[in-house]
Amino acid sequence: MSTTLRKKRAADAAAAAGVDALLVTHLPDVRYLCGFTGSSAALILTNGAHRRAVLFTDGRYTAQARAEAAGTRVVIAPRPMQAACEWLVKSRVKRCGFDAAQTTVASLSAMRKAIAEAANARSSKPKLVAVKPLVARLREIKDAEEIQRMRAAAAIGCMLFDRMLAFMQPGMTEMAVAAELEHAARLAGAEGMSFETIVASGVRSSMPHGHASSAKLPRRGFVTLDFGVVLEGYCSDMTRTIHLGPASAAERHAYDAVLEAQEAGVAAVRAGVSVGDVDEAARSVLRRAKLDKWFTHSTGHGVGLEIHEAPRLAAKATQRLEAEWWLQLNPAYICRGNSACASKTPL
Amino acid sequence: MSTTLRKKRAADAAAAAGVDALLVTHLPDVRYLCGFTGSSAALILTNGAHRRAVLFTDGRYTAQARAEAAGTRVVIAPRPMQAACEWLVKSRVKRCGFDAAQTTVASLSAMRKAIAEAANARSSKPKLVAVKPLVARLREIKDAEEIQRMRAAAAIGCMLFDRMLAFMQPGMTEMAVAAELEHAARLAGAEGMSFETIVASGVRSSMPHGHASSAKLPRRGFVTLDFGVVLEGYCSDMTRTIHLGPASAAERHAYDAVLEAQEAGVAAVRAGVSVGDVDEAARSVLRRAKLDKWFTHSTGHGVGLEIHEAPRLAAKATQRLEAEWWLQLNPAYICRGNSACASKTPL
Repeated sequence: MSTTLRKKRAADAAAAAGVDALLVTHLPDVRYLCGFTGSSAALILTNGAHRRAVLFTDGRYTAQARAEAAGTRVVIAPRPMQAACEWLVKSRVKRCGFDAAQTTVASLSAMRKAIAEAANARSSKPKLVAVKPLVARLREIKDAEEIQRMRAAAAIGCMLFDRMLAFMQPGMTEMAVAAELEHAARLAGAEGMSFETIVASGVRSSMPHGHASSAKLPRRGFVTLDFGVVLEGYCSDMTRTIHLGPASAAERHAYDAVLEAQEAGVAAVRAGVSVGDVDEAARSVLRRAKLDKWFTHSTGHGVGLEIHEAPRLAAKATQRLEAEWWLQLNPAYICRGNSACASKTPL
Repeated sequence: MSTTLRKKRAADAAAAAGVDALLVTHLPDVRYLCGFTGSSAALILTNGAHRRAVLFTDGRYTAQARAEAAGTRVVIAPRPMQAACEWLVKSRVKRCGFDAAQTTVASLSAMRKAIAEAANARSSKPKLVAVKPLVARLREIKDAEEIQRMRAAAAIGCMLFDRMLAFMQPGMTEMAVAAELEHAARLAGAEGMSFETIVASGVRSSMPHGHASSAKLPRRGFVTLDFGVVLEGYCSDMTRTIHLGPASAAERHAYDAVLEAQEAGVAAVRAGVSVGDVDEAARSVLRRAKLDKWFTHSTGHGVGLEIHEAPRLAAKATQRLEAEWWLQLNPAYICRGNSACASKTPL
């Protein structure tokens, strides 16, 4: 989907929310809408008779903003947010929406002050109105280009996991495993990791978010890897637990139950199903195995330009999964996320 | 400094700000105050007759929170923020401060709703009061243990830069340089990089924030490296520009002016000086060299648990640099930040 169409959709969503402009400051939203990847940005979309899109950033990004945000007017200012507020006044915007989930109390206060100062001696000033995360909502359903990028990122993840299977040996530190994994990710073209790589071995494997430490991989025991790469801005996310050496009956029982739960969760994913039902499909397997009290995590979450995106697949959540027309026509695009991921079995 | 003392200082700052409790939700602040490194946390400090500190997190972090936040009471709840709000009501807190710069408009609204629900049918309910970034302010001045960690992180940075000098060759991609650098960082013990590694070569070296791309290092031209590592939670940050092959007179002029500006900035750093004066010390060198219009960046910023911390060393900023007693007694702790950093000349 072109950024032109994305901007149009966001402006339409703003109109539906009852505002005549939308101020976007969350950087992944800015990137999604206009392509700009810099660390300082405010994007205004208007939905009046003359639709406009203006990106405000600072002088560090003059060259980059014009190259990346082609098709969007770029304004360079020492204080981009203040410039954006002045623009709202000058353009006689009446109601400008902002994302309450991405705007701090201090920012809102600073924006209101900037508007009040710019509107000085003018008859009317724009009103800043909290709106729902409209752009995050658009970003939930990926378009074909995004899915292609996410598949490419996930494919690197699969390749890395296979490499780590061959690489890991008892006695090696968790950090050495993370080092090898991240180096291979970079050489495969990743821009970076989508979060701090987790390698948790032995008793540490009970910590779902245990960062790689100087602990050594055991001769007998579990090792949990949780990692992702960023490719063309899009994140992959993959958690896999393996066992080194012979496993006890209790360890096999736990491993098999988790694998079965994961597969049940994946099998439950389709358009129209509620996210709570997907969670329950996985959770009920663990309940039967009498392991559910240890399942303190939710079952899954969206990924994309950010590592955690809506929807969140949590117990009893009611949001329904959706799919765009092209996805319904192309079921092969849905890739199985289990340990046999390298084979990419279409559902 | 012990976390006990840090919590006491934060509670004292809250008392001075006119609130009887402080709700801390910014994760680096939580880590600073109680040691917990998980991704879901709300910490309440009270400053009444009975000082209390309670950390709220979710079931993913049961083991980790109790281990890391020893000395702080830990409450595990499915919705930690809601549990924190209920605790405020139950504990009859009157005014609870929150950091306006770290709290979104949506979070504030959710917290007020949680408090209203919990306070139902009770006589009084806690008032949430926006306060300045009190914990960020404490974090500006590092204690001896923090400086030690930051020096260790910076020492890895220096070692990596020396290695990259030997490694970089014309024709190599920027991403290959980033891959080597990050791998060496991991093997040296870094938990990760403090931000996405920047390798910008040839014409790309004009972009202060140009991420490593598939562009190849030139036979003749600049290469800018900007990178940092995280070690025991603390960030390093180092930008160095080198030139491959013979440099033209204009290139030498620019390089020498930037080096001179950097050294002038470093030389201006001492307790009592305003940050704007440090910026001006660097900027005036570039002005004399007629290059100041290209200096679109500020001169510097604090680092610590986060890669960007106060103070920001920007043009005309008035904040004054401070130093704690032990730093005044130990000037050798101040390390020169220039290209000859590996030699760590004390000022």
